[in-house]
Amino acid sequence: MYNRILIANRGEIALRIIRACKELGVETVAIYSEADRGASYLELADEAYCVGPAKSAQSYLKIDRVISAAEVGNVEAIHPGYGFLAENAQFNEICRSCNIDFIGPSPDAMQRLGDKNEARKMAREANVPVVPGSDGLIEDHEEAMKIAHEIGFPVLIKATAGGGGKGMRVAANDLVLKTALQQAQTEAQAAFGNGGVYLEKYVEHPRHVEVQVIADQHGNVVHLYERECSTQRRHQKLIEESPAPNLSAETREAICAAAVRMIQGANYHNAGTVEFIVDKNENFYFIEVNARIQVEHPVTEMVTGVDLIQTQIRVAAGEKLPFTQDDIKIEGAAIECRINAEDPDRNFMPCPGKIERFIAPGGPGVRFDSHVFSGYTVPPHYDSMIGKLIVHRKTREEAIRCMQRALDEIRTDGIRTTAPFHKMLLNHSAFAEGKIDTTFVERTFLPS
Amino acid sequence: MYNRILIANRGEIALRIIRACKELGVETVAIYSEADRGASYLELADEAYCVGPAKSAQSYLKIDRVISAAEVGNVEAIHPGYGFLAENAQFNEICRSCNIDFIGPSPDAMQRLGDKNEARKMAREANVPVVPGSDGLIEDHEEAMKIAHEIGFPVLIKATAGGGGKGMRVAANDLVLKTALQQAQTEAQAAFGNGGVYLEKYVEHPRHVEVQVIADQHGNVVHLYERECSTQRRHQKLIEESPAPNLSAETREAICAAAVRMIQGANYHNAGTVEFIVDKNENFYFIEVNARIQVEHPVTEMVTGVDLIQTQIRVAAGEKLPFTQDDIKIEGAAIECRINAEDPDRNFMPCPGKIERFIAPGGPGVRFDSHVFSGYTVPPHYDSMIGKLIVHRKTREEAIRCMQRALDEIRTDGIRTTAPFHKMLLNHSAFAEGKIDTTFVERTFLPS
Repeated sequence: MYNRILIANRGEIALRIIRACKELGVETVAIYSEADRGASYLELADEAYCVGPAKSAQSYLKIDRVISAAEVGNVEAIHPGYGFLAENAQFNEICRSCNIDFIGPSPDAMQRLGDKNEARKMAREANVPVVPGSDGLIEDHEEAMKIAHEIGFPVLIKATAGGGGKGMRVAANDLVLKTALQQAQTEAQAAFGNGGVYLEKYVEHPRHVEVQVIADQHGNVVHLYERECSTQRRHQKLIEESPAPNLSAETREAICAAAVRMIQGANYHNAGTVEFIVDKNENFYFIEVNARIQVEHPVTEMVTGVDLIQTQIRVAAGEKLPFTQDDIKIEGAAIECRINAEDPDRNFMPCPGKIERFIAPGGPGVRFDSHVFSGYTVPPHYDSMIGKLIVHRKTREEAIRCMQRALDEIRTDGIRTTAPFHKMLLNHSAFAEGKIDTTFVERTFLPS
Repeated sequence: MYNRILIANRGEIALRIIRACKELGVETVAIYSEADRGASYLELADEAYCVGPAKSAQSYLKIDRVISAAEVGNVEAIHPGYGFLAENAQFNEICRSCNIDFIGPSPDAMQRLGDKNEARKMAREANVPVVPGSDGLIEDHEEAMKIAHEIGFPVLIKATAGGGGKGMRVAANDLVLKTALQQAQTEAQAAFGNGGVYLEKYVEHPRHVEVQVIADQHGNVVHLYERECSTQRRHQKLIEESPAPNLSAETREAICAAAVRMIQGANYHNAGTVEFIVDKNENFYFIEVNARIQVEHPVTEMVTGVDLIQTQIRVAAGEKLPFTQDDIKIEGAAIECRINAEDPDRNFMPCPGKIERFIAPGGPGVRFDSHVFSGYTVPPHYDSMIGKLIVHRKTREEAIRCMQRALDEIRTDGIRTTAPFHKMLLNHSAFAEGKIDTTFVERTFLPS
């Protein structure tokens, strides 16, 4: 096991990783931008280094400064958390060349899975269903037309280097297809420096279901079942849960097995998430692999009892997985709400600022992962998440009630948060029945 | 199920009961003394009434005022929490006469179990081992001498109405016995208005192990396994855990079965705890029944997944227990530290005062039950507990490490707490090995 690792992140995930390290007996080196001076996680780390000004590009994303901190801090490994450098294969490679373990997959696996078209190819090779579409990148309108007619309209044009909805267009007929293709290519080129796009059948009212997988460096791959993340607003997850409601046992088994095949085929180690869309007939299709720990990992921890961050660190250090597939069982139901400093009444405008008085929710069934405290100022420079509220109860119905009472307990005097919006979502009958797809939130609460 | 209940308590247990009610969909009426105006739990209740000045005797213990609040609040039941009126059979009886359910056992069962000598008799009738001693109250020195010679010195003289060590004396020989008997009788008379005492063999280096039981009004009695509470200072529990470390499976089974027999024999319903002492050979002896929910109930909730407060309310309302004995399994290990506003360096002197900045511990495996927040003033009038820190992990070793890192996270700027003392206890090798008895803390850390 490592003696000392650096955490190349901030906020709640930095705190989360420090907690895991303390329980493992591993020392931690934290980094911070000038805007994060005084953050609570820095007090809990064994050492902390400033890596630059507030802007991420000049601090948390500045590879040379992060590596310098790691060298000065004399660490054996770096945990990247999520976001920032977590899926940067170049950073991963540089760590390796500096003889520092990157707590995550190899640069090669990360690189290949980061290319969406390449990942689609890997999925097909692993016998994992993908949405019907082009075999590779689309060159021109003629090729697009041909494929669209084969698979049937509506179709989705997606950027191979894409993310966050950029370079993505839906086309319902021939007429739209031509314009949409050009727009997507131009947008992708501008956003990612790569204009490559491909075509997929557009799945209507899809659910987003993802499978948590973890693999060691000895060939062992174990899945930790699925998470339902269909409660989204503009492709941003709001509520995640495990197990997915209303998913048949057969589909659960099949989707988890597919995720394991995908990870095995990619020669992947450490934690990863295989994302799928599921249609109303429970057909599922591979979307992409997230080659890192995810924001919503706690729901899986709650229902399986596995500490994912500790396990990430163990397998990065070369240990074998401390459990087999048979050891993993789902107990009860867990739900997570991402509490953001945003104003739901003003189009979710970010609300950075000082939290004059903060009261955290607590009591049975409640876990709150947050770095904020009374007097903390939410800086405007980073994402607006101020905490993750996770509940774990015997049944989904009990978990919803527990979440509702826990949401009532949060106080963040001085700033507005999305907590009231979460309450409204949880109170909706469609949510109670688990009849949600990725269009649920916008369709029901945010008519344009 | 009830529509509305009154909570005849304050602080963390009032908040705990509100949480349970909210999850059950039951409205709550809170009460508060003038010193508790502005307490956070009052905001979460549906209604709140002031019942008098700061002093407990004039507010929380004032039966007529509590009953008035219940009548004005139009409640169907009262949850007494622990302490205050929780084991007051007269209050229990008055509730009944006012047609308000008392969430606890019947006044009769409470009365009988509250008399220690009577409870000892009930234990013998239920074939539950008691410490060898007198069959009933001791009249004079001659009788005491006779029994002491039968059972062997050292012996313990205990007040039948006793509690908190009052009216209790150890005698190692004939010479001491005479004086000790007189002292105990006088002290018991002064403290409880009842000078009755009885004699027991003094068990050296005993462990304190208690069994959580819950019974409905339909004759179903289920135990939820044991808690080890041997880490005490002056008869005050500091750390509680479940399961008890180093307890053989046979003893666990036998002690739990004995607890169930005791509760069945007492015609008892609702939650109760049967307390035992366990000697170094794992012989166990009944001490007493706590006819209420206990401070340390969360460790049992964590390892069994049962919400004890919700279950108390359900069975008081006449529902059958929602589980059978076979449904109850212990998963992992849970530990609780009672965080008190006391200064360990000054003989645990209470440290009431304002908490300028409060940071609660969090993250995986951590539950924090507390009513305090930044800016909260701990009043000097009540017990000094400001929160209960509970952890739940797969193994006891992992739970200890989780507790240590969680204790590091608590911040209570402005007042001192027992958190550093708990860290010291947890770091001790005897604690790590689970080799603790009720003399451990004083022997090891507080030599007189």
